[in-house]
Order: sequence, then C-alpha cells, then structure tokens
Amino acid sequence: MYRNGVLEKEGFPVEEVSEYVRDPDNTVWFDLCHPTQDDLGVLREELGLHELAVEDVVSGHQRPKVDSYDGHLFITVYGIHVDDGRLAPVEVDVFVTANALVTIREDERFDIGQVTRRWDATDGTLGANGVSFLLHGLLDYVVDGHLDYVEDIDGRIENLEEQLFDEDRPIDGRALQRAIYELRRDLTRFRKIAMPMREVLGTLLRRNQGLVAGTAMAPYYEDVYDHVIRVDEWLESTRDQLANLRETRLAQQGMRLNEIMKRLTGWAAIIAVPTLITGFYGMNVPYPGYGSGWGFWLSAVLIAGISVGLYAAFKKRDWL
Amino acid sequence: MYRNGVLEKEGFPVEEVSEYVRDPDNTVWFDLCHPTQDDLGVLREELGLHELAVEDVVSGHQRPKVDSYDGHLFITVYGIHVDDGRLAPVEVDVFVTANALVTIREDERFDIGQVTRRWDATDGTLGANGVSFLLHGLLDYVVDGHLDYVEDIDGRIENLEEQLFDEDRPIDGRALQRAIYELRRDLTRFRKIAMPMREVLGTLLRRNQGLVAGTAMAPYYEDVYDHVIRVDEWLESTRDQLANLRETRLAQQGMRLNEIMKRLTGWAAIIAVPTLITGFYGMNVPYPGYGSGWGFWLSAVLIAGISVGLYAAFKKRDWL
Amino acid sequence: MYRNGVLEKEGFPVEEVSEYVRDPDNTVWFDLCHPTQDDLGVLREELGLHELAVEDVVSGHQRPKVDSYDGHLFITVYGIHVDDGRLAPVEVDVFVTANALVTIREDERFDIGQVTRRWDATDGTLGANGVSFLLHGLLDYVVDGHLDYVEDIDGRIENLEEQLFDEDRPIDGRALQRAIYELRRDLTRFRKIAMPMREVLGTLLRRNQGLVAGTAMAPYYEDVYDHVIRVDEWLESTRDQLANLRETRLAQQGMRLNEIMKRLTGWAAIIAVPTLITGFYGMNVPYPGYGSGWGFWLSAVLIAGISVGLYAAFKKRDWL
Amino acid sequence: MYRNGVLEKEGFPVEEVSEYVRDPDNTVWFDLCHPTQDDLGVLREELGLHELAVEDVVSGHQRPKVDSYDGHLFITVYGIHVDDGRLAPVEVDVFVTANALVTIREDERFDIGQVTRRWDATDGTLGANGVSFLLHGLLDYVVDGHLDYVEDIDGRIENLEEQLFDEDRPIDGRALQRAIYELRRDLTRFRKIAMPMREVLGTLLRRNQGLVAGTAMAPYYEDVYDHVIRVDEWLESTRDQLANLRETRLAQQGMRLNEIMKRLTGWAAIIAVPTLITGFYGMNVPYPGYGSGWGFWLSAVLIAGISVGLYAAFKKRDWL
Amino acid sequence: MYRNGVLEKEGFPVEEVSEYVRDPDNTVWFDLCHPTQDDLGVLREELGLHELAVEDVVSGHQRPKVDSYDGHLFITVYGIHVDDGRLAPVEVDVFVTANALVTIREDERFDIGQVTRRWDATDGTLGANGVSFLLHGLLDYVVDGHLDYVEDIDGRIENLEEQLFDEDRPIDGRALQRAIYELRRDLTRFRKIAMPMREVLGTLLRRNQGLVAGTAMAPYYEDVYDHVIRVDEWLESTRDQLANLRETRLAQQGMRLNEIMKRLTGWAAIIAVPTLITGFYGMNVPYPGYGSGWGFWLSAVLIAGISVGLYAAFKKRDWL
Repeated sequence: MYRNGVLEKEGFPVEEVSEYVRDPDNTVWFDLCHPTQDDLGVLREELGLHELAVEDVVSGHQRPKVDSYDGHLFITVYGIHVDDGRLAPVEVDVFVTANALVTIREDERFDIGQVTRRWDATDGTLGANGVSFLLHGLLDYVVDGHLDYVEDIDGRIENLEEQLFDEDRPIDGRALQRAIYELRRDLTRFRKIAMPMREVLGTLLRRNQGLVAGTAMAPYYEDVYDHVIRVDEWLESTRDQLANLRETRLAQQGMRLNEIMKRLTGWAAIIAVPTLITGFYGMNVPYPGYGSGWGFWLSAVLIAGISVGLYAAFKKRDWL
Repeated sequence: MYRNGVLEKEGFPVEEVSEYVRDPDNTVWFDLCHPTQDDLGVLREELGLHELAVEDVVSGHQRPKVDSYDGHLFITVYGIHVDDGRLAPVEVDVFVTANALVTIREDERFDIGQVTRRWDATDGTLGANGVSFLLHGLLDYVVDGHLDYVEDIDGRIENLEEQLFDEDRPIDGRALQRAIYELRRDLTRFRKIAMPMREVLGTLLRRNQGLVAGTAMAPYYEDVYDHVIRVDEWLESTRDQLANLRETRLAQQGMRLNEIMKRLTGWAAIIAVPTLITGFYGMNVPYPGYGSGWGFWLSAVLIAGISVGLYAAFKKRDWL
Repeated sequence: MYRNGVLEKEGFPVEEVSEYVRDPDNTVWFDLCHPTQDDLGVLREELGLHELAVEDVVSGHQRPKVDSYDGHLFITVYGIHVDDGRLAPVEVDVFVTANALVTIREDERFDIGQVTRRWDATDGTLGANGVSFLLHGLLDYVVDGHLDYVEDIDGRIENLEEQLFDEDRPIDGRALQRAIYELRRDLTRFRKIAMPMREVLGTLLRRNQGLVAGTAMAPYYEDVYDHVIRVDEWLESTRDQLANLRETRLAQQGMRLNEIMKRLTGWAAIIAVPTLITGFYGMNVPYPGYGSGWGFWLSAVLIAGISVGLYAAFKKRDWL
Repeated sequence: MYRNGVLEKEGFPVEEVSEYVRDPDNTVWFDLCHPTQDDLGVLREELGLHELAVEDVVSGHQRPKVDSYDGHLFITVYGIHVDDGRLAPVEVDVFVTANALVTIREDERFDIGQVTRRWDATDGTLGANGVSFLLHGLLDYVVDGHLDYVEDIDGRIENLEEQLFDEDRPIDGRALQRAIYELRRDLTRFRKIAMPMREVLGTLLRRNQGLVAGTAMAPYYEDVYDHVIRVDEWLESTRDQLANLRETRLAQQGMRLNEIMKRLTGWAAIIAVPTLITGFYGMNVPYPGYGSGWGFWLSAVLIAGISVGLYAAFKKRDWL
Repeated sequence: MYRNGVLEKEGFPVEEVSEYVRDPDNTVWFDLCHPTQDDLGVLREELGLHELAVEDVVSGHQRPKVDSYDGHLFITVYGIHVDDGRLAPVEVDVFVTANALVTIREDERFDIGQVTRRWDATDGTLGANGVSFLLHGLLDYVVDGHLDYVEDIDGRIENLEEQLFDEDRPIDGRALQRAIYELRRDLTRFRKIAMPMREVLGTLLRRNQGLVAGTAMAPYYEDVYDHVIRVDEWLESTRDQLANLRETRLAQQGMRLNEIMKRLTGWAAIIAVPTLITGFYGMNVPYPGYGSGWGFWLSAVLIAGISVGLYAAFKKRDWL
C-alpha cells in the first residue's frame, strides 16, 4: 500500500483491501499468484469488480487487451518466459480502480520483484500519480521484456546467418532447418502477444482520460507506446530477415544439388569410359592386339589417356 | 416463452406466436429445424418478417451477417460441425424482434440443447433483458464453438510438428502432405464463416441502440466480441504456423534429396571403381600378371583396398 | 415501356423515346445490342446523355463503375460468359435517367431475356418503383451470374482436389498443371470484373439519394450488395484454395522425385553388386575357384545371396 | 497562345511570356524540351515560379506528383517510351498558372505533337476552359499511353502463355526465363510511374477548386481518373497473371525433371540387367552351358526376353 | 550561433547556451558527438529538456520519431553509413527549442560538416527562419543520404541482373547467392530507418504549427517529405526487383538441373549400350562370330554404329 506516493504497508490480507481503498489518499497494490476461485470471489466483492472480468481471469488465455468497466479497468498482458528454448508467455491480469492496482499472475514465472524494484528506483515525485504510476512501471517492465526478446531473436538470426555462409565448417542441415522452424514458430507466438500491445497502450493513452491522458504520466506512457511500436517494427524486420535466411537456405540446397549432380556426372564419365574399353578388350573375338603385348599397351594407354583427358577437361570447366 | 425473465411455457405451435408476442412482457423463443416453405410462410405472417429475410432462409448458404429490417433483425451465423474429419459448418438463421427470438437451424447437427442449457445456467437478473439475453446466449455458444475449433486445429498442427522432427520414426510423406492440405482447406473454409463474425458483433454493439448498446447486456456482448477477435488472431497465427510447417517440410524434402544423391554418388563410386578393375583383369591381352597367381592377389588387393579407401574417405566427409 | 408499374408497350423505335419519357408516369426500358455509332447518336439526343458516357460505350472495355452525370447515371457491369472453357465477360452499359433505363449489350452472349423474365416474375407492388426496380432486376441477374460462376470454380477445384489424392489412378501431371493454370487465370480475370461491383452497389446505395436510398427498393439493393460481398469473400477463399492445391501439387512432385531417386538407388545397387561379382569371376587370373565347379557355385550363391539380401534390406527400409 | 479559346499565336520567345500572360483572356502554352539552366531562370522570373519547383525540374527523376505553390501548380508525369524492349519513361514537368501552361520535356522521346493534335481535334466549346482544357489534353494523352502500355504487356503475357502450353514446339527455357524476368522488371518500373497518377488526378479533382472542381472540365478529369484506376487494376491483374506464368513454369520444370528421372531409371534398368547377364556368361567358371551352344541360346533368350519384358512393363506403367 | 539569420559565434561551451538562448533573436546551434552522461546533464538543465528525451539519447537505438514535449521537440533520425559493405546506420538525436537546435551524433561517422556546408550555401533570406531553417538543412541532408543509398542499391541490383544473363561467363552461384542475401538484409535494415521518416516529416508538417506549418519553410519541408516518399516507393520497387532476381535465379537453377540430368542421361546411354555389346562378346559361350574375325568386325560396327546413332539422335532432340 502506498499513501500519498509513499510506501506504507505490505503483506495484508485480501479482506482488508476495501478498508484501505476507501481512503482516496491511499494507493493500494495487491498481487495474487495463481489465485483460487475463492480468492477472486473475495477480491471481487472487496473492490466491486465486474463478473465478466473475473471470469476472464479464471478462464485464462485472454488476448492482451484493455476492458473498461464501470469504476475499473481490466488489463491483460503477457510477460516473456523462455522454457527450454521455447517461448512460453506468462499471463498477467491487472485490475485498475481509482486507487488500487491488482496484479494477478498466472504463476511464479513472471517475476513481480522486478516490477517493484522498478517502482522503488523511480524518484518520489512521479509516485504521487498513484495507480497510474504503478501501472506504468508494470507495463514498462513487460514491454522491455518484449524488446529484450525480439533483440534476442535478432541475435539468434545473425548467428544462423554466419553458419549459413561459413565456408570452413559444413552446415548441419537438419539442425539449421529445425532452428529456423523453431524461430519462426516462436515469432508467430510472440506476435500474438506483442501486436495487441499497441492497442492496449493506445487505449490507455487516448480513451481513459482520468487515468493517463492529461496527467504528468502521459509522456511516460507515450514512451512505453514508443517501445511497443519499436517491438512491432523490429518484429516485422525480423520476420523478413528470417524469410531471407530460409529462402537463401533453399537456394543453397538447390545449388548444392546441382553441384552434386555435376560431379556425379563427371566422375561417372571418367569411370564409365575406361570400363567400356576394358569391356572391348575382354571380348572373345580376335580384335587387333588380341592376346598380344602391344594390345595390352594400347589398352593401358587408352584407359589412362582418356581418364586423364576427361579429368582435365572437366576440371577446366569446373565440373569436378 | 419467457415472461418477465422467467420461463413460462414451452412447445406451442407457430400459429400462436403472434398472440404471445403481443404482450410486451413476454419474451418468446421459437426454434425451427429444417423448416418447410409453409412453416416459414406462417412465421412470416405471425411476426411480420420481411420477404427478403425469409428468402435468405430458404435459399441458404448466406454469409454470416446482420440485416436490419423495419421492426426486426435478421442474423446468420454458422455453428461448427466436423464430419468425418472435414469441417461442415451448420447454418443458423435468427430473427430478432422486440420480444421474440426465432432460431432456424439448417439441420439437427447444430445442438440447440447446448444453448438452452447455457440460458438456464445464467442467474435470473440477466434474463430480464429478454431477447438480448437470449441472443447473447446463442452467439456466445457459437463463438465458443469457433474458439474450440481453432484450438483443435492448433493442436493438430503441433501434432504434425512433432512428426516432422521425430527422428526415430520415418515420416509418412504422403499422409503428412494430405494432412497439411486438409488442415489448410479447413482453415480456408473456417475463415469464411469466422471472419465476418467480427462485423456481426460489431454491428450489434454499435448500431442497434435499442437491443444491445447502452443496456446491461453491453459488456456481455463486448465479451463475445473479444472472443471473436481472439478467434481471428488465433486463426492468423495458425495459418502462419501451417505455412511454417509446409515450407519446413519442403525444405526437408530438398535436404533429403540432396542426401540421397550424395549417398547414391558415394556408393556408385565404391562399386564402379572395383568393377573397372575387374574389367581390366578380364581383358584378353597379356597384362602384367595375366593368368598368374600374383596377378590375382594384386587385383584382389586393388579391389579391396580401393573399396575400403573410398568408403573411409566418403564416411569421413559424411557422404555416406 | 412500363406505365405506373404496368407493362404497356413494347418494340417502338429509338426516335420515339423522348416522347414517352416526357410523361413522368411512364417508365421506359430500352435495349440495344451492339449498337452503331448512329443509334447512340440518336439515343444521346433523345435522352440528353453526356458525350463522355456515350464515348465510353463506343470505346468499350470499361471497368465496372457508376458515373454520375447531370440528370443521368452511367453504369457498366459485366455478365459472365464461358467460351470454350475460358471466361469471356460480356460488357453491359446502362443509362439510368429519372424514368428511363437503357441497356446496351456488347453482343447477344448476354441474355437479356433472363432479366425480363425476372422482372415479370416479381409481383406488381415493387414495379411501382420504376427504373429503380428495373435496374435492380438487371443487377440482381448479373450478380447471381457472378455467384454461379464462383460456385462453379469452387466445384472445379474440389474436382482437382480429388484427382490429387486419388491413389488408384495416376495423375496426369500435364493436364492437372494446365487446369490449375487456367483456373487461376480465369480467377484473375473474374476478379477484375467482380471486385469493382462492391463499389458500384455501394455508390448506388449511399450516394444517389433519389434513386435507391430511402425508397422501398433499398433492402433489395442491400440484398444484391450482400451477394456481391459473398462473391468477394468466396473469391478470396477460392484463390486460397487454389494456392493450396498448387503448393500441394508441388510438394507431391518433390516427394515423387525423392521416391524415384530412392528406388533408382536401390535397384542400381541390387544390379551393380552382382555385376561386380561377375566381373570378378570374369578376370583372367587364377582366383580361387577359377575354372572349377565349386567356383561357379560360390559365384552363383554370392550373386543370388547378395541380390536377395539387398532387396530384403531395402524393402525393410521402404526404399523399394 | 490561345485567346478566348482560339489559337492565336505560335513560336514566340520565352521573354515575351509575361506580356501575354498579363491579359487574363489569353491562355498561353509554352513548351520547352531539355531546357538549359538559363531558360528556366528566365521562365521563373517571367511567371513568378517557386524556386523549389524549378529546382525539381533541374534535378529531374521526380515521382509523379502535384505540388501546389502560391499562384501556380507544379505537376510531374511520365510518358511511356520503350527503348530496345526496355521501358524507359520520359519525364514531363508542367507548370500551371491561372492562364499559362508550361510543359518541360526531358527530351524529344515524348511526342508533344500528339498532345497538340488532341487539343486541335476537340471542338471549340471546351477550349474556353483555358489551361484546364490544355492540361486535360496532356494528362489524357499520358494516361492513354499508360493504358496502351499495360495492354501491350498483357498481350506479351498471353503470348508467353501460348508458348508454355504449346506441345508441338519445345520451350526455349532460357529465353522464356529471360522474357518473364524482363516483363516483371518492366512492370515494377511501370508501377513506379503509374501508381502515383491516382494521387495526381485525385489532387486535381478534389483540392484545387479554381482549376478543375466545379467547372465543366470536371467530368473530363473524372474520365481520366477512371482510366488511371483502370491502369492500376489492370496492372494488378497483370502482375497476378505473370506470377501464375512463373509458378506454372516452375511446376513444369519440376514435372519435367521427374519425367527425365523416370525415363533414366527405366532405360538404366533395361540396359543394366542384360549387362549383368553378359557378365554372368563371361565368368571363367564352368557355369551350366559354359562353352556350349545351348548356353549361348539360353543367354540370348534371357537377354532379349528380360529387355523386352522390362520395356513392356515400364511402357505399361508410363515410365518410358 | 546565428543572430537574426546571420552566423555570429562559434565554439562556445555548453554552459553558456542558456545565456544565448535567452535572447529570442539568437538562434543557437549546438553539436555534441558521443556525449558523456554529464554533458547531457548540463545540457538538460541549460535548455530545460525533458528527462525522458535525455534518457532516450543515453539508451540509444531509438526508432526515427518526433516526440513533442513542453517547450521542445525531440527528433531521432539515422544517417547512412556503409561499413565494409554492410549498412551501419548512425543515430542522430535532435533537440529543437524555440531558438536552439542541438544535434547529438552517435559518433563521427555522421559528417556534420556536410550539414553546415548546406546551411552556408543557402542564401540569407531563408536563414531568418531560425531553427526551422537549420532543422530543414539537417533533415534534407539525411533524406538525401537515404535517396543516394537506395539509388546505390538499385545499381547493385542491375549489376547482379547483368551477371544473371551474361552467357559468356559462368555464374559464380555462391557469390551471387551471398550478394542477394546481403542486399536483402541491408534493405530490411534500411527499411527500419527509412519508413518511419514519413511519419517524422508528416508530424513536423502537420502538427507543430509554430515551427513549420504556415511559415515560409513549409514548401521546403514539403520538398523533403516528397523525397521521403520517393525513398519509400523506390525501396518498394527495389524489394520487388530483388525478389524478381531471386526467383529468376531459382528458376535458372531448376533449369540447369534439368539440363544436367538430360545430358547425364544421354551420355550414360551412349556409353552403356556399347558396354552391353562388349559384355555380350565377352561371354564364354559360342555365340555367332565367337573367336572369329567377322565377329570382331560385327562387334566393332555395332559399337561404333550404335554410339554414333544415339549421339545423333540425342543431338537432334537437343539432349546433349
């Protein structure tokens, strides 16, 4: 609980919330992690939340959004969590009333400590803005997480890019293929939680006059909005970059196949022609040189000469 | 028939509808399944429906939409039905007047019982909103069906994804190809019935003031609208995911071809070179070692040595 | 000529048009098929048409559109005609004045009889709406034609789809390729005439107040507009479906190539190894078993054994 | 110079322009081809043109646009010129004041004679609209050039299409590939000069009230606008058509490769099996029939029988 | 420092800025290159800048944007720098107050000298517009850099195009592939800094009335805006052109593979058939001509005749 912008109390039970909230000078922050149905029921009564918003918390898997109810906002955002190389977003639901902020985390993978540290690090003047200040800290943390994630993806793509053109090491096609596939899958998933953030911030900035617009917090929300747009643009360029990688890989495969075929053809010729000659000299008919020494020398010269000649000709044309 | 939000009567014939409707305190719900031309004629007269709307019911295969006529709305939506693995949407046409809701189902595959159960499960206060409440229950059920469907598709895609990278089991290319084709076809079809839902809900929320906007039902319709957007966004990410799968499969095929060619080339060389040597020793000319023991040993050593040498060289370069 | 909504006269010459038109109770419909420059000149004077609109008729190949001039509208739409399997749209230009409708068909392939039959089939009350009623009949017929066409395309795609996965009959690749090409070409052409219809109907519904908006015909035009949107949406899903077909076909080709290569490799090995053995036993050096019976049996056993062994091994790995 | 809509004087020097322009009844048209910096300097002073507009003329390579300055408009459009099969657009800059039109051509490849002939061909009444009339003539000519160009492209695509499916003549793959490449490159370039025309005409029609909107010229500009939209739509369908061609060609290549591989496999088998048999009968071991007549007949029968048998089997499966 | 549009003083320390700024007749320009945290702190106090804007400078990697704070604007743009063939954009942050312009360069790679030369080259009248004039010079330089860059890219693409169709020199597939990859990567990066410029200029032109809109500088900003649009359109056509190149290259690869396979097949046949004949004549059975002279001549004729015949047949069908 913050009072007049100053932290006053911590760790009180849900049931007391309504008491503190009654005093407009107080700003109450309440955090629930994986709450039970009952917790939510108590909360609902204490703060007068709308039934639908509470239902959304229970059912989970909402899209990032701002829902505006009488007397409170309901916001859903997703924090980034990477689980064994796979993107596993963590849902955070937020209730915003005049002087209370309730954060409901899906589970502990969303580190709320980072948010409180951010709150504490800001100097006092902004703290006077109450829930608007608290909400900003939360959103700022979430969006910075998105920014870090897209930067991380960008780095992984550059990594693959280097592998692609590294001439010293052969490419492990299977692993590369899989890495590209997984990057793209994660990007698709990330898009689902990052794109609607634009609307979330836009709604907060433009529609809800009391909370953000026209207050000293507005530039700070603008700043978060700016980061959201940066995430979006970066995401788009990342997708483009990945498509570039993917198509280049495909073209490389095609080129590689051509080269293999060229070599196959070349070596096949170098082996097949001498084989034909040995076949000729293996016939049971009295060809010139049959059974005589000069026949052997002629055949040997033919085999060696044609082999070397073909090899040189193909080498010159860059077929081998 | 509901009266002042309370269920009062069930199972009366079409002809009596106009009687009940006359009393504004009554809310009449009427359900027809695969009605005849005559049924619709009676209904049209009883409720004063517009000729064009009734024609739309008869001709069928409308797109999801809201048509606004004098004194009533005409809504078309599609329920999900999966028939032998293929998506087979079921059309449901709805007439909404001031105090009557008529649902006309294409056939029994749309389970109206689910909708009534949903109505009954809601507590009484909302029921006072009459047709608006009933319509909400129907739309909620339909959109939840869409949500389930897109979730199901998502699951099937993840399933295919696992097959794609399962290194223990060889991929049944033909079946995978077919599964991808059918998923995409179903997605295309589903899009056709799901995308216009956004407009349907949007129209109900914004334009028809008496029915939804400004009433206690508004947040509930907003909630359905939210689900519709979630379906849309999920659908988009699903399409993206499927494209990812498809292109990865294509790249795998290309990689596989390259590998097959590499191996083919390798083994061909390992067999062709000894064959050339046997050809040489099969010539009917007095080559060194012709007909003598050491000739055999030389040839045997050459054959074995070159075969093993090539094998080792190729194995080292990962060509076999 | 219709008078007060009742058909009165038929088959009078162009020159008399202005007489009939003078009486506001008359509704005149005039149909020209492939008119000469002179016919149009007379018409222009009789009805006071704008020079540019008449020029558009002469030059032909307009895009579907509504041009609004002082005292009259100029509308261009395209009827569907399929000529030897190719889409060959037929241009129909329409002049709409206060009480006259002039239809100018490019040639006889557009069956105006279908339109008059539609007019006659509607009951009398709507006929009182004069040109608005007549124009509706025409547009309704045209858009229904588009709807039929896109349905037909849909059917052809499903047909190809069945061929694609029919395992009993081999695919005639060349014919399938051509069919896909032609379907796509026709869809591109159809798009060119169907997409602008949305704007045509939209313009009629919203901008020209006297003619459609606010009259009893409005719902009927809405209905046509609805069909236009359905054509558009169906068109899009058709394009998607075709892309699905095309890409699946490509993937099948790639898979087929892989299979052919696998088998080629397998059989090549089964033949090449015994050939090597015969080569060995064909050498003119005293290998073990040279010229003796057990040498033959050993060679025969080797040849048969290795062939059968390879065949079994490849069969097990599904390489043959 | 036109006076009251009548051509009065021709071929006077730049320096006199301001004299004629002073009289509002005069309409002055001035044409410069590849002007020097000095010519433009004089012109600038005579007509009071804005420095930036003149700079744009000098620097060249502007995009098609309308710039609106105090007292004059500056318009840039591109005429079509095809140079050795490559699209080489010619820039034409236009200054429009109250009663003067200055056209500045990049070079002689833009035939201004065609524009004057168009002006002269129009009857006198429109000529009274002064610069608006002159400008229309110019834009009409330019846009008709675009229309002709896209029609020409369409024709070339249909030409390629015929080549693609002509079964009598083998396709010259290299030439086809190049033709497709060049068509697409030209389309991309053409797009760059044709797409912004929509904005140019739109700006003239809507924003600059004195010049076009509300005058008798408005329908004529609408007509040009209509052609611009037709160019755009045609361009889009052309791109689509070209993509169709390109992808079909790719699919044909894939199919062709499959066929080549099938035949290669088939013939390889037909040759390899008899070769194995001859190898068997070439062994220096007493196989049954060694050195005896019936051995020859058996081998001959085996060779011929297996060859014919394989050929028949493959032919039946359409592998050869 | 400029006073009344005239350059007066240069090279004074940050701390004095506020003094000069106090006099509204002065226009102060201040340039910082890679400033320390302290420099920015001083600057912030001197000019009363917003904390968030200064933070953006410190954190860097902003997207191009205009942020509007009380009393000053904060603008971020990117100059082009090519580092070892890779695009490496240089960030330039700009603070704009009523009579001061502060440019903060990421490092020396952005040549501010070019901007001052541009300022000095403009004649005095425009200089009277103070910061608006200075800002214009900077933006003009930046956008001209973008224009040069996209022109350079265009040139590189045309270069690759020539390589693609140069029949005299074989294509170095690997280098071409890499060049295409890198071009596309640079385009993606360039897009990220060039696309938002449209919004930057648009914001300056439309929203901030005091600075640009309604002043004599407006046409000059319009001119820069025009260049920005040209960059965008050129960028799009460049991407299209690159896609064309890429896909053509892919099709060429496919064609090349087909050709290699055709030749492989052809030569394989020419060698395999004679090999079969030598095998036949190598059998140890009394075939006709066994051990006799005419047998040799027959075999020789068969080998030579079939080889030449196959060669001629394949050559005629363009298979070799």
